[in-house]
Amino acid sequence: MKKKITIAIDAMGGENAPKKNIEGLNIFLNKNKLNKDFIIHLHGNKKILDKELSKLNISNDLVKVIHSESVVSDEETPLTAIKNSKNTSMWNSIKAQIDGEADISLSAGNTGVLFVISKMILKMMNQVSKPALAGLWPSKKGMSVVLDLGANIECDEKNLVDFSEMGTALFKSIFPNQTPCVSLLNIGSEEIKGTEVLKKTYSKLKSLSNEKNFLFNGYIEGNKLMDGETNVIVTDGFTGNIALKTAEGTAKFVVDSLKQSLTENIFSKLSIIFSYFSLKKFKSKLDPRKYNGAIFLGLNGPVVKSHGSTDSVGFYYSIDLCYRIIKGNLMDQIKNNLDHLDVRD
Amino acid sequence: MKKKITIAIDAMGGENAPKKNIEGLNIFLNKNKLNKDFIIHLHGNKKILDKELSKLNISNDLVKVIHSESVVSDEETPLTAIKNSKNTSMWNSIKAQIDGEADISLSAGNTGVLFVISKMILKMMNQVSKPALAGLWPSKKGMSVVLDLGANIECDEKNLVDFSEMGTALFKSIFPNQTPCVSLLNIGSEEIKGTEVLKKTYSKLKSLSNEKNFLFNGYIEGNKLMDGETNVIVTDGFTGNIALKTAEGTAKFVVDSLKQSLTENIFSKLSIIFSYFSLKKFKSKLDPRKYNGAIFLGLNGPVVKSHGSTDSVGFYYSIDLCYRIIKGNLMDQIKNNLDHLDVRD
Repeated sequence: MKKKITIAIDAMGGENAPKKNIEGLNIFLNKNKLNKDFIIHLHGNKKILDKELSKLNISNDLVKVIHSESVVSDEETPLTAIKNSKNTSMWNSIKAQIDGEADISLSAGNTGVLFVISKMILKMMNQVSKPALAGLWPSKKGMSVVLDLGANIECDEKNLVDFSEMGTALFKSIFPNQTPCVSLLNIGSEEIKGTEVLKKTYSKLKSLSNEKNFLFNGYIEGNKLMDGETNVIVTDGFTGNIALKTAEGTAKFVVDSLKQSLTENIFSKLSIIFSYFSLKKFKSKLDPRKYNGAIFLGLNGPVVKSHGSTDSVGFYYSIDLCYRIIKGNLMDQIKNNLDHLDVRD
Repeated sequence: MKKKITIAIDAMGGENAPKKNIEGLNIFLNKNKLNKDFIIHLHGNKKILDKELSKLNISNDLVKVIHSESVVSDEETPLTAIKNSKNTSMWNSIKAQIDGEADISLSAGNTGVLFVISKMILKMMNQVSKPALAGLWPSKKGMSVVLDLGANIECDEKNLVDFSEMGTALFKSIFPNQTPCVSLLNIGSEEIKGTEVLKKTYSKLKSLSNEKNFLFNGYIEGNKLMDGETNVIVTDGFTGNIALKTAEGTAKFVVDSLKQSLTENIFSKLSIIFSYFSLKKFKSKLDPRKYNGAIFLGLNGPVVKSHGSTDSVGFYYSIDLCYRIIKGNLMDQIKNNLDHLDVRD
């Protein structure tokens, strides 16, 4: 029998925890009624969690509660976290990977603390120069992976090549039937454009590009990010974070303007009745909860960070992401890709 | 009598030139029938321009055609431009400023060439460390100025402080009744976030902030760019260009998704009838032509670059921008602001 996928969830992290975490889990269980290839480990206060589980009538042999004494507080900083966060639900959900009890960890708690203790407990993979934060990005053709979204402010060509290999592995684990195409985010598409680091990365990726691992598509500009011509977009953490948040802000601005226009008079309000289902589909396509879950890559085990403020639906999507990543053998894919790098060095 | 505002237009630059340039001018003339405080100098082939002008019955003593023998070709690169672009319509429209014949120059031609010859002819202002490309950005409260949008890939704190002073001057010249508030684009809003250059710029701007010139609002993240809480957003040219293009791409993606949803079935199509005027207003608010025109700041004279592919309406907005900038005394404002820098050094 194949080993079950074990997802260790910090059930106490994020706004409205553990309510939204358990409700998100409930959605996941309902959508996966026919799958028996996973186990969920909920880390947190057993008494509170048992109560939440019974509220939703979750008594499932696929869910196991593992008691933790404490919780990482919102006031904790990365500097104080190492001292204060031992044996919290977040700590234990990550440590479970080292103890061989889980394949992946998920938390909606304090981001800075999660990164610091993940690095401390799981440690960086041998061949990786820097870990990176990757996310899913909507495109005309589906979804792309973008990294780094903020783990490293400054990056050199070695880091960016590592990110390409790790991002490709992530993409392949989530979308096994698609060929990963890597592009470097830049301010022009010509080979001579950009910083020295980008130019060096460009020539390195060009030489690494092959059918087996990934195809290199050259540079990509911000306005083409969502075209879907490329599906793994690589950049440093500063630029990636600016691009991500600018896209979020712009989408919100456009949708808010639309809402304002469609509710300004009786005719436009009436029109909503006729376009109700179409607008609902439009809204669903752009729903940020579908993209909830940033993946911390480059450690000896994957850690997924859910938005702290997401709701149960958003949390469900991040559980589902964990499930798909492990089902797609992320860690083996990363190791293979990095070996491929070594061969070419 | 006050001296008239003279705008030197490269009438031959951009797609569909000179047709769209002259049509854009016609819109400008129609909207400014009551104003007599400007003169437009059209640089280009006199025969062709006279023909286009007569097509639209423009025979106006506020418009003067100045003959140029040649045009900058699309194939020209910044490297070959200096040799080949002398006496082109673009060259002459910029040189007019040095000869005291114009206050500002406008072109929709080859961007790289425009920057190179602008720098060569107009030269950098004494106190400025690097010139910058500034643009208008829509916000909930109106419009903001963002710079640098791509002139300088790497910037130090001196450059970013200069950009703040120049961006503030630009904002004040266009919106004389509003107080400029400067923010630095960063990946977090806490003072300790970001690169060393950003931290140094932060403390410098904090000490320069005052009611007379500008208020410093600290760091801003990409998702707050359009909130309008701040109206002069400063960043290096790499980050600014990524943010600008990501915002453009995202807005297009959202609007395209909406269009697709609203035309997918008979009910949604029907709804468009009821929401026609509201959707038109929504579209108009986001119309990129309204923001057409990037301003090249830091030279001994302002140069405005219109999108090459814009139409007559977009070109009209860039003529209008030139008019407002000079009416608002941009160059004096920049000089004042930079003097204020010197005092505080």
